[in-house]
Amino acid sequence: MNRRKFFRNGSLLTLGTTLLHPFGSAANTVQQGRINKNKKAKNIIVIVSDGMSIGTLNMADLYLSRKTGTGTNWLQLYKDNKVTRSLMDMASASSIVTDSAAASSSWGGGVRIDNGALNVSRNGEEHLPIWQKFKQVGKKAGCVTTVPITHATPAGFCVNSKSRNAQEQIAEKYLQHKFDVMMGGGDTYFSPEKRKDKKNMYQDFASNGYKVVKTRSEMLSASIDQPILGVFHDNGLPYSIDRENSKELQQKVPTLAEMTQKAIEAMKGHPKGFVLQVEAGKVDWAAHGNDIAGLIYDQVAHDEAIQVAMDFAEQDGETLVIITTDHGNANPGAIYGKEANDNFDSIQQYKHTNDWILNGIGRETSISQLKERVNYANNIVLTDDEAKLLLSYYSQLHVEDGLYNPKHLPFKVLAEIQKQYNSVGWISMQHSADYVELAVYGPGSHLLKPFIKNTDLHYFMLEAAEVENAF
Amino acid sequence: MNRRKFFRNGSLLTLGTTLLHPFGSAANTVQQGRINKNKKAKNIIVIVSDGMSIGTLNMADLYLSRKTGTGTNWLQLYKDNKVTRSLMDMASASSIVTDSAAASSSWGGGVRIDNGALNVSRNGEEHLPIWQKFKQVGKKAGCVTTVPITHATPAGFCVNSKSRNAQEQIAEKYLQHKFDVMMGGGDTYFSPEKRKDKKNMYQDFASNGYKVVKTRSEMLSASIDQPILGVFHDNGLPYSIDRENSKELQQKVPTLAEMTQKAIEAMKGHPKGFVLQVEAGKVDWAAHGNDIAGLIYDQVAHDEAIQVAMDFAEQDGETLVIITTDHGNANPGAIYGKEANDNFDSIQQYKHTNDWILNGIGRETSISQLKERVNYANNIVLTDDEAKLLLSYYSQLHVEDGLYNPKHLPFKVLAEIQKQYNSVGWISMQHSADYVELAVYGPGSHLLKPFIKNTDLHYFMLEAAEVENAF
Repeated sequence: MNRRKFFRNGSLLTLGTTLLHPFGSAANTVQQGRINKNKKAKNIIVIVSDGMSIGTLNMADLYLSRKTGTGTNWLQLYKDNKVTRSLMDMASASSIVTDSAAASSSWGGGVRIDNGALNVSRNGEEHLPIWQKFKQVGKKAGCVTTVPITHATPAGFCVNSKSRNAQEQIAEKYLQHKFDVMMGGGDTYFSPEKRKDKKNMYQDFASNGYKVVKTRSEMLSASIDQPILGVFHDNGLPYSIDRENSKELQQKVPTLAEMTQKAIEAMKGHPKGFVLQVEAGKVDWAAHGNDIAGLIYDQVAHDEAIQVAMDFAEQDGETLVIITTDHGNANPGAIYGKEANDNFDSIQQYKHTNDWILNGIGRETSISQLKERVNYANNIVLTDDEAKLLLSYYSQLHVEDGLYNPKHLPFKVLAEIQKQYNSVGWISMQHSADYVELAVYGPGSHLLKPFIKNTDLHYFMLEAAEVENAF
Repeated sequence: MNRRKFFRNGSLLTLGTTLLHPFGSAANTVQQGRINKNKKAKNIIVIVSDGMSIGTLNMADLYLSRKTGTGTNWLQLYKDNKVTRSLMDMASASSIVTDSAAASSSWGGGVRIDNGALNVSRNGEEHLPIWQKFKQVGKKAGCVTTVPITHATPAGFCVNSKSRNAQEQIAEKYLQHKFDVMMGGGDTYFSPEKRKDKKNMYQDFASNGYKVVKTRSEMLSASIDQPILGVFHDNGLPYSIDRENSKELQQKVPTLAEMTQKAIEAMKGHPKGFVLQVEAGKVDWAAHGNDIAGLIYDQVAHDEAIQVAMDFAEQDGETLVIITTDHGNANPGAIYGKEANDNFDSIQQYKHTNDWILNGIGRETSISQLKERVNYANNIVLTDDEAKLLLSYYSQLHVEDGLYNPKHLPFKVLAEIQKQYNSVGWISMQHSADYVELAVYGPGSHLLKPFIKNTDLHYFMLEAAEVENAF
């Protein structure tokens, strides 16, 4: 079988000679290629930290290293020399800076489209999403995420939609295509009380053979003999650090690692294999909010999901694991200064996100109450002026906007105040054009070049799984 | 000969099995190792973009791609699969965020020391700098840079000094150790009129057999039969874009690529080989100033030096090329928005740096003159309020500080204003803790692991050159 014919993208034609070998000797490369050619990826697990600037990965690693003596699982894979790395250019058809819909579609459909759409080009052309391709060749397919399961990143692997915002319709499309495990947040798009059309999507899924679970314990005990829909929260799931500090949330909501584990268990016995997307979606939301505790702890939650996937893949031997992000966001970093170490380490004392802090404040909150709340969450004592400035946003004296900030809360102001104490800075509250980090483990990983376009990843997955692109 | 005995750093003991091979098969790795073992690095060229956050590399690549259709030479090496990549942890002994002196010393002396020092530990212990080690085994050694040749990054490979600020003494130490090609800025530290001790360092170098050159044409025509000292400007060399738009500066000052070419020519005939450090030092200064035109065009100048080094190394076959940065700085990035493409592309119209803009303004400058100057340099029309805000810094109504901002000019304010027009953001005006990008070409590059500590690079260079660490 000629593996090359799978490709329709010229830039990939040289993938056969892609070992990161310094001398570039064709003989060596071909030899390696032959050895690896004998293996194909029966299963694929794609683990996405949404909106992860490289500084986010670095800070999570630094945070864990300084707290526990051991860094992230992601970078441990580099230290153990287990993965092939690449930089990936994530531009969309409409912009050097992608949104998550166009980003996921580039991987999902293999074509760059405009920001905001899901596998539909400007001219209306639809591109078959990769999880549908894998379903067609007999594999099981699923997604787990910490944002609504109907959100851009899972949707980009699963469906076509002119708008990423059509999340109610996206929920229906998931049922049409009978994806095998779909879990995350997004009750808003499934519940008859909350949907505009009052449809009960849970009932529709259940009557089509799905096990519907709404709590962590229901998920853990769910039979794996039927497909699973898991929806654990209204919208996005709670941030990891807020969950860790709430018994109620711990009981209600599973971690990303737990969802990953369940999804693998539910699909791994399938003779033709499975494909799974795992998304730490709230890393992106935290970056949009310049919310350092949200960012670091959700990146760590992502990292724990990596370990679950790697534990399975290393034992299984037929699983390709792809670890990456869809774009940078806010390019955070720890900043130079005499107190840089102590300031950065102070984040270890944080008990809650800025999201938790700001959503617990209102017009009626006093200065001392606000200071007490911030002190409880961050172990810092604000000045009265800082507290007054934050409060002024609750009486609409000032207003902040933001993608995931419907209440116009002062996320930017709070991050600016915290910067003095934790030495973390942000370039904006938006995505960046940075090329992104990509690491690949398992069968097919020798095909990866050190620099690729986002759309290359679509064909890379098909190639690694030896699935001909004839759909 | 047992190559392993060169190492004194435990973490490097596994370097022998470091091929980026996805299956981690010991058999394959050893096989590759054997093939490469037969080559050693006779020459080493280390090319440092000082203070280059990954966003700086990305933006330079994006800038060139969109302007010319071809990206950076650095990333082309990835596309052509010619190099081994690694992430490198640059922390110093005193901080998670290094300065350039501790960073260069980690490579230069193989030991993490406190920020501010050059190869001297807190307890006074001195660590022999790597260019002295290579001199001792008979190689020629040199440095070229766009900042003073006595600045931290070249000095960290060459000398010991409790303080990086002792640049006059550092100039004397260069002569003591008879480095073969030293070129950059820094007349301040060589000229009898400017040195505190009134010594004429030029005379001292000349009477010790050096050819002293002070202009581009003198450099180009200098004999390569004697060592060369080149000092082309008072302090740092002019930014590349300011040089490009001044015939006078073009005549006076060589580019980094031209200095690199000359240094290679001057040292390449040596039977025992040579080592050369090339530093784009003003990338860091531009980041400290949030000066986008300085940043991108000096990163491009660095990239042109890469090409010079690679052209030589590919033909030579015995040269190890190491391309990296010493730390992040300001973590800049192009930010999401409807106008992101056009805004980012507007930088192609820039004629001068913010350094040029702000140094040409004074108390007596009128609002219309200031607007005209910014319009000439950036092709944007400031509002009167923006112009007034900038002018207020010249009458000391407001003050900005900064490492390379002795006149307290409003660099931050100008960058904030420009952000609306060019969509580039910055987290601060200081270094960041980010792990940095490292790419290696040539003999020895197979020894590189995908994640290393800064100090590992010291032993990596010795190992690649098969120089026993017995000094």
